Amino acid sequence: MAQDRLNERIFQALNGLDIELPSWGFADTGTRFGKFYQDAAAIDIYDKIADASTVHALTGSASKMAVHVLWDFSTEHPPSEVAQAARDAGIHIGSINPNLFQDADYKLGSFGHPDETVQEKALDHCLASIAIAKTCESRVISLWFADGTNYPGQDSVRRRKRAFEKNLAQCYAALAPDQTLLIEYKPFEPAFYHTDVADWGMALHLATQAGPQAKVLVDTGHHYSSQNIEQIVAWLLDEGRLGGFHFNDRRYADDDLTLGSIDPYQVFRIFHEIHAYGADHGCPAKLDYMVDQSHNLKPKIPAMIQTVTWAQELFAKACLVDLESLRRHQAAGRIIEAEQCLQRAFMTDVSSSLIAWRESKGLPTDPLRSFRESGLLEERAKERRARRQALGMQQNSAYA
Amino acid sequence: MAQDRLNERIFQALNGLDIELPSWGFADTGTRFGKFYQDAAAIDIYDKIADASTVHALTGSASKMAVHVLWDFSTEHPPSEVAQAARDAGIHIGSINPNLFQDADYKLGSFGHPDETVQEKALDHCLASIAIAKTCESRVISLWFADGTNYPGQDSVRRRKRAFEKNLAQCYAALAPDQTLLIEYKPFEPAFYHTDVADWGMALHLATQAGPQAKVLVDTGHHYSSQNIEQIVAWLLDEGRLGGFHFNDRRYADDDLTLGSIDPYQVFRIFHEIHAYGADHGCPAKLDYMVDQSHNLKPKIPAMIQTVTWAQELFAKACLVDLESLRRHQAAGRIIEAEQCLQRAFMTDVSSSLIAWRESKGLPTDPLRSFRESGLLEERAKERRARRQALGMQQNSAYA
Amino acid sequence: MAQDRLNERIFQALNGLDIELPSWGFADTGTRFGKFYQDAAAIDIYDKIADASTVHALTGSASKMAVHVLWDFSTEHPPSEVAQAARDAGIHIGSINPNLFQDADYKLGSFGHPDETVQEKALDHCLASIAIAKTCESRVISLWFADGTNYPGQDSVRRRKRAFEKNLAQCYAALAPDQTLLIEYKPFEPAFYHTDVADWGMALHLATQAGPQAKVLVDTGHHYSSQNIEQIVAWLLDEGRLGGFHFNDRRYADDDLTLGSIDPYQVFRIFHEIHAYGADHGCPAKLDYMVDQSHNLKPKIPAMIQTVTWAQELFAKACLVDLESLRRHQAAGRIIEAEQCLQRAFMTDVSSSLIAWRESKGLPTDPLRSFRESGLLEERAKERRARRQALGMQQNSAYA
Amino acid sequence: MAQDRLNERIFQALNGLDIELPSWGFADTGTRFGKFYQDAAAIDIYDKIADASTVHALTGSASKMAVHVLWDFSTEHPPSEVAQAARDAGIHIGSINPNLFQDADYKLGSFGHPDETVQEKALDHCLASIAIAKTCESRVISLWFADGTNYPGQDSVRRRKRAFEKNLAQCYAALAPDQTLLIEYKPFEPAFYHTDVADWGMALHLATQAGPQAKVLVDTGHHYSSQNIEQIVAWLLDEGRLGGFHFNDRRYADDDLTLGSIDPYQVFRIFHEIHAYGADHGCPAKLDYMVDQSHNLKPKIPAMIQTVTWAQELFAKACLVDLESLRRHQAAGRIIEAEQCLQRAFMTDVSSSLIAWRESKGLPTDPLRSFRESGLLEERAKERRARRQALGMQQNSAYA
Repeated sequence: MAQDRLNERIFQALNGLDIELPSWGFADTGTRFGKFYQDAAAIDIYDKIADASTVHALTGSASKMAVHVLWDFSTEHPPSEVAQAARDAGIHIGSINPNLFQDADYKLGSFGHPDETVQEKALDHCLASIAIAKTCESRVISLWFADGTNYPGQDSVRRRKRAFEKNLAQCYAALAPDQTLLIEYKPFEPAFYHTDVADWGMALHLATQAGPQAKVLVDTGHHYSSQNIEQIVAWLLDEGRLGGFHFNDRRYADDDLTLGSIDPYQVFRIFHEIHAYGADHGCPAKLDYMVDQSHNLKPKIPAMIQTVTWAQELFAKACLVDLESLRRHQAAGRIIEAEQCLQRAFMTDVSSSLIAWRESKGLPTDPLRSFRESGLLEERAKERRARRQALGMQQNSAYA
Repeated sequence: MAQDRLNERIFQALNGLDIELPSWGFADTGTRFGKFYQDAAAIDIYDKIADASTVHALTGSASKMAVHVLWDFSTEHPPSEVAQAARDAGIHIGSINPNLFQDADYKLGSFGHPDETVQEKALDHCLASIAIAKTCESRVISLWFADGTNYPGQDSVRRRKRAFEKNLAQCYAALAPDQTLLIEYKPFEPAFYHTDVADWGMALHLATQAGPQAKVLVDTGHHYSSQNIEQIVAWLLDEGRLGGFHFNDRRYADDDLTLGSIDPYQVFRIFHEIHAYGADHGCPAKLDYMVDQSHNLKPKIPAMIQTVTWAQELFAKACLVDLESLRRHQAAGRIIEAEQCLQRAFMTDVSSSLIAWRESKGLPTDPLRSFRESGLLEERAKERRARRQALGMQQNSAYA
Repeated sequence: MAQDRLNERIFQALNGLDIELPSWGFADTGTRFGKFYQDAAAIDIYDKIADASTVHALTGSASKMAVHVLWDFSTEHPPSEVAQAARDAGIHIGSINPNLFQDADYKLGSFGHPDETVQEKALDHCLASIAIAKTCESRVISLWFADGTNYPGQDSVRRRKRAFEKNLAQCYAALAPDQTLLIEYKPFEPAFYHTDVADWGMALHLATQAGPQAKVLVDTGHHYSSQNIEQIVAWLLDEGRLGGFHFNDRRYADDDLTLGSIDPYQVFRIFHEIHAYGADHGCPAKLDYMVDQSHNLKPKIPAMIQTVTWAQELFAKACLVDLESLRRHQAAGRIIEAEQCLQRAFMTDVSSSLIAWRESKGLPTDPLRSFRESGLLEERAKERRARRQALGMQQNSAYA
Repeated sequence: MAQDRLNERIFQALNGLDIELPSWGFADTGTRFGKFYQDAAAIDIYDKIADASTVHALTGSASKMAVHVLWDFSTEHPPSEVAQAARDAGIHIGSINPNLFQDADYKLGSFGHPDETVQEKALDHCLASIAIAKTCESRVISLWFADGTNYPGQDSVRRRKRAFEKNLAQCYAALAPDQTLLIEYKPFEPAFYHTDVADWGMALHLATQAGPQAKVLVDTGHHYSSQNIEQIVAWLLDEGRLGGFHFNDRRYADDDLTLGSIDPYQVFRIFHEIHAYGADHGCPAKLDYMVDQSHNLKPKIPAMIQTVTWAQELFAKACLVDLESLRRHQAAGRIIEAEQCLQRAFMTDVSSSLIAWRESKGLPTDPLRSFRESGLLEERAKERRARRQALGMQQNSAYA
């Protein structure tokens, strides 16, 4: 393909790409074996806004930040104030995420808990989150349930299913007409025998029961080993029930590594399904792209920049699949030729197009290098370290 | 529990247990690396009827035999004649299984094939199978699709999904009011990149689209590693969409080992879900239990007897769960006590109850030993070996 | 088998069964999503000793407690004092577990860290642990390494392997002649791209390099999905390199559920390999049985009692396999008959033998019920809740 | 990197790349559900030689063909004649593969069979294969064992292990000084409960027991889900025990899809380990690269050409990793920068270098297109179809 035709396609694709960053991706996280603290990690919601804003300013594709109701809002930092702070920093509040797993009451579940008073507490928190979304002018409420059991017999799967249907109906009734309720699925962790919303089929059932504004959220790390994610994406697209993504990568379980770090070809294939759907329908699919990763070892802001730029690169490659040839080869059963339509697009070097697009937007051509050279990491590390000390918080000690 | 109360419960459970045997389970099977031929393996449909009849006569719980349209019927052996032969042998024809994978035309699929003329051929075969079912007075048509692709890009997932929806609607339209269309799912093999009906969510979607007489068939070997099968069973029961089972066991993939040979506790838990559903609804769930195994190494008839008696044992254990205590412990969040309701039932020795039930039915108390002592295996081996020789068919050579 | 012959075998087996309890199994634990605090959870090493002592007093099979150097010893609670406290409570200190993952220095590894000064720090801690073991009269030092990487390219696999070989040689050199160095393997978590000691083959290589007192520790939850653990056990036994076990159960990853809760037949098969090895060699294999579970939801002491009694039950069943018949059927290729030797032993009701054995030892016949009726749980909960309050520690709030 | 520096490195890498093609990859293959026959599939060893020769002539990197003793040699086609035919066609006979799974005697195993007379038969076949290798001037005997069991208790794991050790010692003793014995591992299929040589650790143990000329063969499809293959490669390289590869790709089990079709980045990482090892040792690792795929749907020769050219592309990319920068970033713990050394090499467009290398060798610049335009596929299909008809063999019917 000629370079200008290539650029044209890629520019159009990139102009349509916006990836929401999670506020919690800028804060210290860990595994159950411990956390390694980073000086530059965000302490509060304003730090997170500053960091997300930096990533957007450097990459041009991350204009929104997802927030976590329990961790990001408080009486001192009410939603309206946080939303304004985000706007002041040049970004917007994205999806609103209730927390239905951390409180001691949720030990045996939230929407599925055996005790209806706990179910009501969980429901109230969701209703409050929907209200917060309205305040923040956020279109999306994103529900992840840790609900499940650890042992055979611990609880009744059918009773829990019914409780979910009932409580989701109540949430749904509170939505504004332009709001979307995303239902996420996950096969296991923290529940290890059964998880109430374990796979896309369960999430789709619950979304369908709830109503047309309820959609399924695909977290790329929440699948059984070797499950075909792009097929699930294609089915949900075809049913009009794909709400969006939590992007990350994994090798084993829900490892929450950075997007495309383990299997970039899989991310490419997911993007290809989305581009192909858009081409068939004459306009891009309306989806919410979000990052949900745990940067335990990588420094937070650089990990986010790497994620967004790698997503841009794979998204750009995916838009280069020659869909017309592909359909022709598929119809004729020419397997190798059809496959090569994907392989050649994947192996196309798009770096000069990416540079050209960045220049056209006034963005740095190498966002990660620009960030490194800016001195911002050191600056924030220093300031936050001091602030942590003043607050008496746990710190990074050595190495790191 | 007192022995007579135990017996009462177990007798009631076993009286309600009927497991369909697959005709193909009596014939030689193998892996892609080869077949090991058995002299006593069935050659034709009449052998299969004789063998299934023997298993039923010894166990009392296998009154039906599933048949495979392509392998079991022919111009010489039309359905009406085969059905009569079964009745003469004291059993009935059970589910009717079309074959949509063996013909060269199906290389790229059947209902999902890129070429509509192949789709039509597949549909015609299904419609013929439905007609055969009527002739055989069989209530059940059981569909398994090998459809899928081996390589990324090989075909359009969405186009294939739509083709399935369309062709299943046509099948459905041909059903008699008392017939059931079972839709089976399988994550992979023989397709290795994507399978069109890969999981229970896809099968449920297709069944729902088709109509209320379409149900999902759960093959216990067709799941991702560590997927919770009893949860899927519970959800499908609750939705009124569980049609039945293909029983077998596995460690890795679709290994088709004999039922409960690798994980008997899992089979017990599945049966527990079914008993619990029945208890909640005042009557047993109406399900079709079928065996679908590949006895590559075990001798065929003994493997079937072992399967049926092991199923009886696990089914009997599962009916002993104290459901009232279980619900009480679940409601109170007493995890260990709830779990022990299952564990104690599983570990209860039910062998004397099984013997008592068999005696009450005039069945041998140790069906496998009775079969061995009957000399039937040697007799059939001898006769079939001679017949194979006369027909010029491949034989077992040494060992075995 | 006659009841007295049955009892004789089972008594002999149970007399030889001793399962070490982990001190950390009595303290609060959680997943990366949070902890649910229990009032009765142990606060310090003396609580843990009290709890382990209770479990041993009730079950008779748990005379040792594994300790964790970092969490269980301190200047105020030096090893000699802790060991004495254990003896005073009627138990002993078992395996000594260094901690090579929690300190910030270990962010990139311990024995495999790119920086040799960190390697040395880790080595020093191991040498100190070996010295502690001597003080505590413990024969066993048990090494688990969280070492690994999260991203392709992050570090050199070969360099890290060599560093492990070098540092293990140094540990080995410090062993007393009667001490054993156990090397544990784990495929992933907390490292998600590669783990330095990922499987039994790597652990065996490292143990072999180190010397004859180094052995492999099999944690039943540290395997790939569907890996055959009993085969690994059999190979390591045959090589004289099986050191012992960390028992727990799992469905997905390293779920750390209680032993045999998901797949009791697998535990039975592991015990069968051990009994069969003992029978072949005229004396039981000398192995260290340890529990390593995370009782996030179950109450701690009851979960331990349940674990030990369930292990007793499965160990008793496994000793009932008729090894002579088994070998005869195996030699003749009688698959079903050989398999049934295991199945019949597994399904034998051993509860009356367990009761008889307990009575013969002056133990309560139902340890869990005795514990519940003792009021000890409520007593310790109350005392520890008050103590936590006095110490200003985080508490359980509601439910549970 | 400047284009000429890039070309220099890539030329050097490609000059050292030689991939052995399997004779069986040109013949009809299938799954256990059936075969789809291809007119152009090879019928006999001379067809296979012709096809392998074509692939080598077009790609320049496939000078050897692996043969299968049972399928490729016979009294009419003795080894010496076959070897000469290969030489005449411009290629050589590569590894010699005994068949220890197809004969009825091997139903319960070969080297591990309970009956020693079967073990001896298997051993004799291996010794004959070693002799054939000498005749064919082949350096490599490649052993794959289907041995294992389907059911718990079926046989003694330890007895079988010992039988393997004994029989391998006998094979080893027959090797010429320049011959290599490759031992392959595979977790399952066709055995479904346990496989005697199930993983790299078992293969390494057996190779070590046998002697220095015994090495481990890594089949990329023979691993547990999510196992880190490149780590195994690195360990075996470091131990001097990596013999070579069977290349193919998979999503689920041993799917035998074409190399790099599912996860090209994984192949790249394996190649990177090999390049890095070579760089550390001053010369490339001496390894046998072989293809082992099952082209059930793709046409045979095009699938092989696609495989070899895709391997060339990934091998070329892998040689571009800046090893010096990589080691520097690794030492400093700069995770993102180290990772990017791999990512940038992987995403480098090497197509112009590949074209230049092909031109420098007088090879067609687009081997697959050249093959298509040559008319060879149609020619061979026609000739073989006629020959099959004459021989009364099963044919392809429709479609395909």
